[in-house]
Amino acid sequence: MQTLTQNTGLYTDFYELTMAQAYFYSGKQEETSTFDYFFRTNPYKGGYVVFAGLQDLLSILSKFSYSDENLAFLKKAGLKDKFLNYLKDFRFRGTIYSMKEGEIAFPYEPIIRVEGRMIECLLIETILLNYLNFQSLIATKACRIRSVIGDKTFADFGLRRAQGLGGIHASRAAIIGGANSTSNVYAAFNYGIPVSGTQAHAWVQSFEKEIDAFRQYAEINPDTTVLLVDTYNTLKSGIPNAILVAKELEKKGHKLVGIRLDSGDLAYLSKKGREMLDDADLSYVQIFASNQLNEYVIKSLNEQGARIDGYGVGTELVTGNDTGALDGVYKLVENNNKPCLKVSENVEKMTLPGRKKVVRYLDKDGMFFRDGILLVEEDHINQIYHPFHSHKTTELGDLTFEVLTQKVMGNGEILIEEQTPNEINTYLQKRFAQLPDEHKRFISPHIYKVGVSEKVLNLKNEMLKGIHNKMN
Amino acid sequence: MQTLTQNTGLYTDFYELTMAQAYFYSGKQEETSTFDYFFRTNPYKGGYVVFAGLQDLLSILSKFSYSDENLAFLKKAGLKDKFLNYLKDFRFRGTIYSMKEGEIAFPYEPIIRVEGRMIECLLIETILLNYLNFQSLIATKACRIRSVIGDKTFADFGLRRAQGLGGIHASRAAIIGGANSTSNVYAAFNYGIPVSGTQAHAWVQSFEKEIDAFRQYAEINPDTTVLLVDTYNTLKSGIPNAILVAKELEKKGHKLVGIRLDSGDLAYLSKKGREMLDDADLSYVQIFASNQLNEYVIKSLNEQGARIDGYGVGTELVTGNDTGALDGVYKLVENNNKPCLKVSENVEKMTLPGRKKVVRYLDKDGMFFRDGILLVEEDHINQIYHPFHSHKTTELGDLTFEVLTQKVMGNGEILIEEQTPNEINTYLQKRFAQLPDEHKRFISPHIYKVGVSEKVLNLKNEMLKGIHNKMN
Repeated sequence: MQTLTQNTGLYTDFYELTMAQAYFYSGKQEETSTFDYFFRTNPYKGGYVVFAGLQDLLSILSKFSYSDENLAFLKKAGLKDKFLNYLKDFRFRGTIYSMKEGEIAFPYEPIIRVEGRMIECLLIETILLNYLNFQSLIATKACRIRSVIGDKTFADFGLRRAQGLGGIHASRAAIIGGANSTSNVYAAFNYGIPVSGTQAHAWVQSFEKEIDAFRQYAEINPDTTVLLVDTYNTLKSGIPNAILVAKELEKKGHKLVGIRLDSGDLAYLSKKGREMLDDADLSYVQIFASNQLNEYVIKSLNEQGARIDGYGVGTELVTGNDTGALDGVYKLVENNNKPCLKVSENVEKMTLPGRKKVVRYLDKDGMFFRDGILLVEEDHINQIYHPFHSHKTTELGDLTFEVLTQKVMGNGEILIEEQTPNEINTYLQKRFAQLPDEHKRFISPHIYKVGVSEKVLNLKNEMLKGIHNKMN
Repeated sequence: MQTLTQNTGLYTDFYELTMAQAYFYSGKQEETSTFDYFFRTNPYKGGYVVFAGLQDLLSILSKFSYSDENLAFLKKAGLKDKFLNYLKDFRFRGTIYSMKEGEIAFPYEPIIRVEGRMIECLLIETILLNYLNFQSLIATKACRIRSVIGDKTFADFGLRRAQGLGGIHASRAAIIGGANSTSNVYAAFNYGIPVSGTQAHAWVQSFEKEIDAFRQYAEINPDTTVLLVDTYNTLKSGIPNAILVAKELEKKGHKLVGIRLDSGDLAYLSKKGREMLDDADLSYVQIFASNQLNEYVIKSLNEQGARIDGYGVGTELVTGNDTGALDGVYKLVENNNKPCLKVSENVEKMTLPGRKKVVRYLDKDGMFFRDGILLVEEDHINQIYHPFHSHKTTELGDLTFEVLTQKVMGNGEILIEEQTPNEINTYLQKRFAQLPDEHKRFISPHIYKVGVSEKVLNLKNEMLKGIHNKMN
């Protein structure tokens, strides 16, 4: 289900429309083109990206169109009648090859290849980048957080600090990356993901006494209550009152689910809290923690022996702190069956020409070993080259390999089955287990090697030699 | 116009619904409450916040409701029939007092005060925080960027790197904060803001030669063309070709608007580019720059004498880098006409009890001097106290003052006139001129003094003394 149900064709940068119009008036509107989607830098100074957002993207592309009201607006913005008339019946009819959602991806890999008429490929650039960059950023963050949480509970609590309606996508991506549930009811409804929540300080404050607030909540929710214990004083009031209520629930045949710590030192308070609960024979009562958590804080809490059974992670998860944006780009690599190159003032902004696919080579244990960027027509190759420093090579021998980029949309029709975010996470878990640990470190992770085939390398070098012909 | 047109009542955290249900079954659903919205820390280590998001918030609150499909979903999520029946006709009927959108705000000020039934105040918490935190974050960023751009052109280019649909809000807030236009067509359509754009590398790449691409674009857009000059080589190819095309346009009675630099050293290239254009008698051709800009980079470019006439700012603007989220919260300050306090483990997380307003005191030149947080019934006061260190006081004498928080919604009805983002920016400009320069510095800005009245201070202290009664 999509939030953006109307005016979909306007979800684009204005220059896409002015360029599309210029192609239209140049008589080039039927020229074919191929664009690559790739990123250049792993977020969070990490070693990988969890690719996410594909299904939302395909869904919106299948609805991408212009209403009469939209066209009237574009006329006022300066576009011309004949082109607006062309947009009236516009639909995206291109073909898309993509990695699976939930796949582990690395810098410079063409995760997605879009083939179609130049105009349709241009008009979808912004929405493609907007959807994929953000969901991949958040799925990667969630995966990092999951990697230190192990099999404890991990809930997304971020909607109130999310970047506006981006919070809807953030919650979906959080589940793909490894969260168990979200507090975000809208996302739960939209995407069919589990919802969860505890209680707020306002509930406790609105009663004369903390114990009254706890009792009342437990009475209405005898089997699902988690009590927030830091409104007045965690150790002197919150936890003792929670213990009282847990004992009262026991007498009625129910069990308090847990308590939540939301301020103070979570390592210290969780250890003290665990002791107090255990001393009261309440070892089944769980301790949940929240308050500005991220993968580094949780790792540190683990190292200090914190007794926390579940984490609510908010702001840092849903905003992808401290990267904020995946630097994914969408670049023309072929036009009318001729490969294209962009050189730029910065070497690392150079593109790889031609229609390409991504192939993953596995070692004998089935672990990820190297990725290759090959021309689509290439099959088995023996060697890959560093994309910028071609004296660095890797022999591939007869390693097992998988072609990661597969057709997911043809003539504008979605060709893959819809999956829930939890199902996509199941795939990620399998893949994450195949990624060697040295790429998962938070500090200076080992760089996963991605190379290009000799054909890709030669094509780039030939084009570079001929670049002066483009210039004048 | 709203993007979130359906399922509005689900745009909330699940615990708001479970707490609302608990109030409902406690017979407390008609109890009145007052909540404050305030933030604790200025973003970007800066000295102020530009408050934004109000109009969008009021608009969505006036539509906040539950469809039958929503209620069926909430039933599956565990809510009970009687409460779901109550939600069927739920509308927000509360009263809201707020600062004007575009106002300059400071930490701990109750920017917004919401009064209503406990249940309605709870259900809107998440959407209020989500909308106001994000738009205020971005409007503040845009204001910082505008402060170094002066009266040159400043365009929002961020949609492709924005956090999903948050990009729509980001563009609105960018205009409020000071951007002249956006590339985001959806936001332009939704909010009636100016749209702009140049051209992409794909356009240049898709022609045999760069000069053909430039000529073709200029032919179709003879009076609005800005040429992107860095696809192959800025100084050797891009600018010389742009000069050729500018001269050809002149012969036909048209003028090239400008060129855009998108990589390399923008200071060096803009100075060289200006020379080349001036030498060709093209002093009217403007130089635009983009590529990972923010307020610090632009300030540095200014200091180096860069010859740039306009800036396209993307990622850092629309994601509010490097803060990512304003830490605004929404706290219960009164329940059934009794003031409420939250103590917490962290002193700075303590709340200020009671129904309060924000008053701004101006010096004899009309500049902002101090802000006071007063009880709503207070009129003139002589002195304000530091909210945490009450030995620090300021005499107010007979300074002119303004009450900043005014009624904007009554019984769920919007009471203010709709304004465009550009109109809101006009108000901001007036207010920003009243803010002394020392609060505008990027590095260690002077802290603007916000104090509380003696009555607020006494109320807090009395309640703190009685806090043990709450605890057990």
